[in-house]
Amino acid sequence: MRDIIDLNCDMGEGFGHWTLGEASDEDLMALISSANIAAGFHAGDPNSMDRVIKLAQQHGVGLGAHPGYNDLQGFGRRYIRTNPEELVNDIVYQVGAVREFGRRHGIPLQHVKPHGALYMEAAVNEELSQSMVDMLRQTCGEVILFCMGVSKTYEVAKRMGQPVVREFFADRDYDESGSIVFARKVARPDPQAIAQKSLRACKEGVVRTVSGVDIEIEFESICFHSDTPGALENGKAIRAALLDNGITIAPAATVLENMA
Amino acid sequence: MRDIIDLNCDMGEGFGHWTLGEASDEDLMALISSANIAAGFHAGDPNSMDRVIKLAQQHGVGLGAHPGYNDLQGFGRRYIRTNPEELVNDIVYQVGAVREFGRRHGIPLQHVKPHGALYMEAAVNEELSQSMVDMLRQTCGEVILFCMGVSKTYEVAKRMGQPVVREFFADRDYDESGSIVFARKVARPDPQAIAQKSLRACKEGVVRTVSGVDIEIEFESICFHSDTPGALENGKAIRAALLDNGITIAPAATVLENMA
Amino acid sequence: MRDIIDLNCDMGEGFGHWTLGEASDEDLMALISSANIAAGFHAGDPNSMDRVIKLAQQHGVGLGAHPGYNDLQGFGRRYIRTNPEELVNDIVYQVGAVREFGRRHGIPLQHVKPHGALYMEAAVNEELSQSMVDMLRQTCGEVILFCMGVSKTYEVAKRMGQPVVREFFADRDYDESGSIVFARKVARPDPQAIAQKSLRACKEGVVRTVSGVDIEIEFESICFHSDTPGALENGKAIRAALLDNGITIAPAATVLENMA
Amino acid sequence: MRDIIDLNCDMGEGFGHWTLGEASDEDLMALISSANIAAGFHAGDPNSMDRVIKLAQQHGVGLGAHPGYNDLQGFGRRYIRTNPEELVNDIVYQVGAVREFGRRHGIPLQHVKPHGALYMEAAVNEELSQSMVDMLRQTCGEVILFCMGVSKTYEVAKRMGQPVVREFFADRDYDESGSIVFARKVARPDPQAIAQKSLRACKEGVVRTVSGVDIEIEFESICFHSDTPGALENGKAIRAALLDNGITIAPAATVLENMA
Repeated sequence: MRDIIDLNCDMGEGFGHWTLGEASDEDLMALISSANIAAGFHAGDPNSMDRVIKLAQQHGVGLGAHPGYNDLQGFGRRYIRTNPEELVNDIVYQVGAVREFGRRHGIPLQHVKPHGALYMEAAVNEELSQSMVDMLRQTCGEVILFCMGVSKTYEVAKRMGQPVVREFFADRDYDESGSIVFARKVARPDPQAIAQKSLRACKEGVVRTVSGVDIEIEFESICFHSDTPGALENGKAIRAALLDNGITIAPAATVLENMA
Repeated sequence: MRDIIDLNCDMGEGFGHWTLGEASDEDLMALISSANIAAGFHAGDPNSMDRVIKLAQQHGVGLGAHPGYNDLQGFGRRYIRTNPEELVNDIVYQVGAVREFGRRHGIPLQHVKPHGALYMEAAVNEELSQSMVDMLRQTCGEVILFCMGVSKTYEVAKRMGQPVVREFFADRDYDESGSIVFARKVARPDPQAIAQKSLRACKEGVVRTVSGVDIEIEFESICFHSDTPGALENGKAIRAALLDNGITIAPAATVLENMA
Repeated sequence: MRDIIDLNCDMGEGFGHWTLGEASDEDLMALISSANIAAGFHAGDPNSMDRVIKLAQQHGVGLGAHPGYNDLQGFGRRYIRTNPEELVNDIVYQVGAVREFGRRHGIPLQHVKPHGALYMEAAVNEELSQSMVDMLRQTCGEVILFCMGVSKTYEVAKRMGQPVVREFFADRDYDESGSIVFARKVARPDPQAIAQKSLRACKEGVVRTVSGVDIEIEFESICFHSDTPGALENGKAIRAALLDNGITIAPAATVLENMA
Repeated sequence: MRDIIDLNCDMGEGFGHWTLGEASDEDLMALISSANIAAGFHAGDPNSMDRVIKLAQQHGVGLGAHPGYNDLQGFGRRYIRTNPEELVNDIVYQVGAVREFGRRHGIPLQHVKPHGALYMEAAVNEELSQSMVDMLRQTCGEVILFCMGVSKTYEVAKRMGQPVVREFFADRDYDESGSIVFARKVARPDPQAIAQKSLRACKEGVVRTVSGVDIEIEFESICFHSDTPGALENGKAIRAALLDNGITIAPAATVLENMA
């Protein structure tokens, strides 16, 4: 049974003239405790970053970089075959940009969460996870890496002593391995179902998979997506279910301190 | 008569598979004291940035961000009409990326030098210069801004107390206003002519304009371009002429300290 | 008094994961007679082009290329300073892409309409208009150029014998010169007001300017924008007002034939 | 023993301010009979396309589109995981752009040759090859598809009746399967060795693999790369060896006609 948990959401995932999803960054920011800021490669631009990072500071939300594959058209959801060195350079670049806007608005970098296909690739690619964690050891020693519990990323971060947070995905389906099932398009979920799924994961430490089996799940943060239909309602329902059941919502860094 | 001067060059201005100019970043880095690192908008990518910033650290060269208009095809040499807020956000983004690679390789950010059309626009646009300096005051208080002596940028930086360095362009022509004459393509210059022009500027504080008149010029750094034909010979000739005449070449920060 | 008119709209102006405006391309396509297809430089990608051009064929809508400045972040609404040769090459490229999808779906290219800042720049830049029309004379002799009535583009096209259509902008404000007032953000208009404005322009040949004066206006096509709030209602109201008053809505090519 | 062969080269693979390789497009164009024009996704821009396609027309060289993955930084040499529909849309887009510049300069499209990782992926991915050929059947019935002899692309094109040309790669190594060995960086080869390898392939129909075994090879075109070091010397040596041995060099369409 968890009594404190982080609630994170991807933020600033429009680009230029375009916005993403039905909910505004303003409305979503009021619900969460950690924000993953799109940094220009899969979404986001310097204007959205400036605006959203300022919002995070105003709401006391933990600031995260959300680096992705350099693929604006594919929204970072397409795997690109390259070596870990190039991918880590891409991550350094995007992390630096997020950190600089944070510096401008007086909010330090709390975490790094790779986006989409990069997150999924790192989960199964130990060499990439190792390169990524090596880089974080050098430049972001205190920064928390977000990942799935069942992933090479978690194993490597733990082994290397990098602060790490495991996520529970409220609006994604799980398979029996404990990995999420990748989906290009996500259907509009029932906010209450998502909220109860999240609450059950907090209280019982289990989640029902697509095959109908319950599996154990460990995590320190709950993620919901701003481009899932009904994102605002989803976020509100999760938040209410947690608070109504006496679970505190706090930035990932606070959750980790609380566990230490 | 100057006895210490900075020598700066734009670096890492290839992109992906492409390189720029005849000279390698390795060879040029050995000649200079400050490097302006292309940050991905007009040229440069995370891989080139990582490589070149590591080189700067190894050579004891001052690290500079070289932010440009977001125009890869135009190499940042085309003016884009937008507001200062958007341009400053573009600069924050690029500065952050450079600073992060510097953090990775143990070299702090020494200076910021806008590139190409952005440099020229800031020189005549007081509102843009003001917004840029306001941002630097917030996030980069100690960082040196590079600009032309005859520019709004210099006026504003001086007024606001931001450290500032004026450049002398060894491989560009001057008009009588003290501004450089913009050129899309630069012809192959005579390295000795460039070197003597630079030396004369240091010793006598004057430069011959395109109209044949001498004008006074003040500066703390000499710039030559890596994409001017014969860049390596140009750099070597300038360096030799300065050293042979007892002028010390040192990073911009050292030059400013020396003047204080 | 006009009894036949074209009704055009910009189409496919999303990009990758992002859509633009509240209305779907499917719903809008059912209302119009000519579609301006974003071609990847300011908006649109190969997938949206394929989808929307197929829609145009299915609805018997005239196919137009909608080339813009190469500025995805700025949505083609920022002027970029360059020479007419480069801009015309950009236009050739985008027109070719649209034409090829048209070839795939069995619909010939009917017209070319520059987008945003490129449209506005051509309107006042005779050299650019001339280069653009010269190119169309070479490669698209039968293709109709869309422009404002008060523009260098119209003058040059008429003089050179290139088929040309003048637009009336239903959801933009006019100044007394007959030019539209550029706006980055457009407020939600009253659909009936837009419809009556369009109808009055058809019947009386006049439009009320922002200064409150009526000016004469000549045109062969009415344009409304898919990213103006309420686009679907705006289009429906215009269409209903025209049809209810006995005005036929037909593709630009049909309108021109009817006038000949 | 072949007495007529096509000689093809990738062309216009610079971007904006950057050029690729040591040899100019002008010099290379004088050596070859078919040119594969980079179309903006992996390299090339509208200005290079206009310039190089005009050159092709002037030299009587067959015009080819050279579509690649949308990955400028990776030069189209990185596999991107997506579905055939999206890739075919990318190809339609790029083919259309090339064809339009051809229309401008009075030279019809002769062939389509996918670039880099897209070429290699199509070679082993039957579904992609099928989608690509289906599209060509619709829009480019007479246009020749270039591919490796040992490839799904060749099998599908033959089966569907699409004109097809197999390539021999003069400056790439072969494995025993008859596929080329992918290399990010290619060392400077001996021009005479390349020329003799090409001549032997023409005369004896065999090539020596990396494992030292001779394998049979069938082809209608010889390809050399403009970014292989010594490209101009390589091209000249191949051309001289062929001509000196009585082998005619002619555009792919002529070679196919000659074989019919």
